[in-house]
Amino acid sequence: MKPILSIVKIGGNIIESEKELARFLILFSQIKGPKILVHGGGKKATAMADKLGIKTAMVQGRRITDKKSLEVAVMTYGGLLNKSIVASLQALKCNAIGLSGADAGIIQAVKRPVELVDFGFVGDIVSVHTQSLLIFLQTGLVPVFCALSHDGKGQLLNTNADTIASELAIALTKEYTTSLYYCFEKPGVLSDISSDNSVISHINKQTYFSLLKEHTIAGGMLPKLENCFYALDHSVHKVCIGNLQMLLPNSSTYTTLTL
Amino acid sequence: MKPILSIVKIGGNIIESEKELARFLILFSQIKGPKILVHGGGKKATAMADKLGIKTAMVQGRRITDKKSLEVAVMTYGGLLNKSIVASLQALKCNAIGLSGADAGIIQAVKRPVELVDFGFVGDIVSVHTQSLLIFLQTGLVPVFCALSHDGKGQLLNTNADTIASELAIALTKEYTTSLYYCFEKPGVLSDISSDNSVISHINKQTYFSLLKEHTIAGGMLPKLENCFYALDHSVHKVCIGNLQMLLPNSSTYTTLTL
Repeated sequence: MKPILSIVKIGGNIIESEKELARFLILFSQIKGPKILVHGGGKKATAMADKLGIKTAMVQGRRITDKKSLEVAVMTYGGLLNKSIVASLQALKCNAIGLSGADAGIIQAVKRPVELVDFGFVGDIVSVHTQSLLIFLQTGLVPVFCALSHDGKGQLLNTNADTIASELAIALTKEYTTSLYYCFEKPGVLSDISSDNSVISHINKQTYFSLLKEHTIAGGMLPKLENCFYALDHSVHKVCIGNLQMLLPNSSTYTTLTL
Repeated sequence: MKPILSIVKIGGNIIESEKELARFLILFSQIKGPKILVHGGGKKATAMADKLGIKTAMVQGRRITDKKSLEVAVMTYGGLLNKSIVASLQALKCNAIGLSGADAGIIQAVKRPVELVDFGFVGDIVSVHTQSLLIFLQTGLVPVFCALSHDGKGQLLNTNADTIASELAIALTKEYTTSLYYCFEKPGVLSDISSDNSVISHINKQTYFSLLKEHTIAGGMLPKLENCFYALDHSVHKVCIGNLQMLLPNSSTYTTLTL
């Protein structure tokens, strides 16, 4: 049987609160066995861009990553957030190593092709090179990824953190039984968006299609779940969605997704 | 015989010019065998601090690293510069991995004790943990260090890049014959500060003391050479000082220091 690998992705709500982040890192450091952390950047980059007088370009309601916005992303995600998280984990005796997708050439992407909109320096992942990553995991290191990839030609690219987490999980299924944990502000997938007490504890592909049909799943949850089932379809063992509570040893309030 | 390891440190003058940096990275990527790059940040951090309206505090002509200045250093050295260098090296087929001293717990420091001046978040190195670093080198990875360390209690610290390079070289002498290359704007140690044609090609400890006595070595070169002889006294094989030319295969115009 393959060893279990936990890949945890945290979103903006945790990153933005010093207290929440500290609480999360304690829980994360206590996860047994090999593990990977993937973090987004949330509003930190926007706040930094504002301070620097860089305007976030938007086209059709979507954010465009121009050269200056990419620099801000590299500074905040790849620099400040990533290294601060690593230093905090080291203090918790968790041997963290901060990585972008360019480091050790792990995550290669292509600049998203221009169709109707040029999204700028946004990367769609084309390959994950696990050779170094496997050595890190096997020697007890805990990789901490920020949401950056590279194109192999010297260009860093902004890449969605949810996608980075799922692509890493998929790439490592050959050697590990990979479990993906998406940590966000809600306690799980809700059957009633207005009630945090309506967590759906288990969703499989069949119930997923029913929920889609009934329009129970909508808005931002749609691409999230699509990404989860994509991972499951590509041999990821299970995907869990919830808030920090999900990482407590005896927690039960969160959503587990399986095929 | 131990394998040769080259540790190259580049200063502000190379970092600040896109052209010079590109030229340097090509030469660096062509160095045979295991190698490490250490980079400072130069004026990039100061420029960023200016843009953010953060004033560089100075006491007795020395720069103080307060909380905000440290954040700027982490963003620019640890983020923008480090990850851009890594992406460029990857494009040159050099399997770079960007690191701060906190990553894999490699460089531990203590906040410089307050005597007459509180320098703020400045770290004096206390130990270098080579375990992961050796694995990186042995598996063909090329570590790229920025000038940051950590205190093991969650605090990142600003640390002089020259010192990081020499402490890494010293720590790795058990497994490698380490050569240190300090790349700066001058072609080497000059006997006449006004003439670039006056490079002293070789300095040993005996000639070093003579040069000190004659006041040939002065100003910023004093701590630089002190640091070099400290490394040589701690089993580093040789130290070379010069500009980019030093890395050319048949170059001869630079200063070599040995015991």
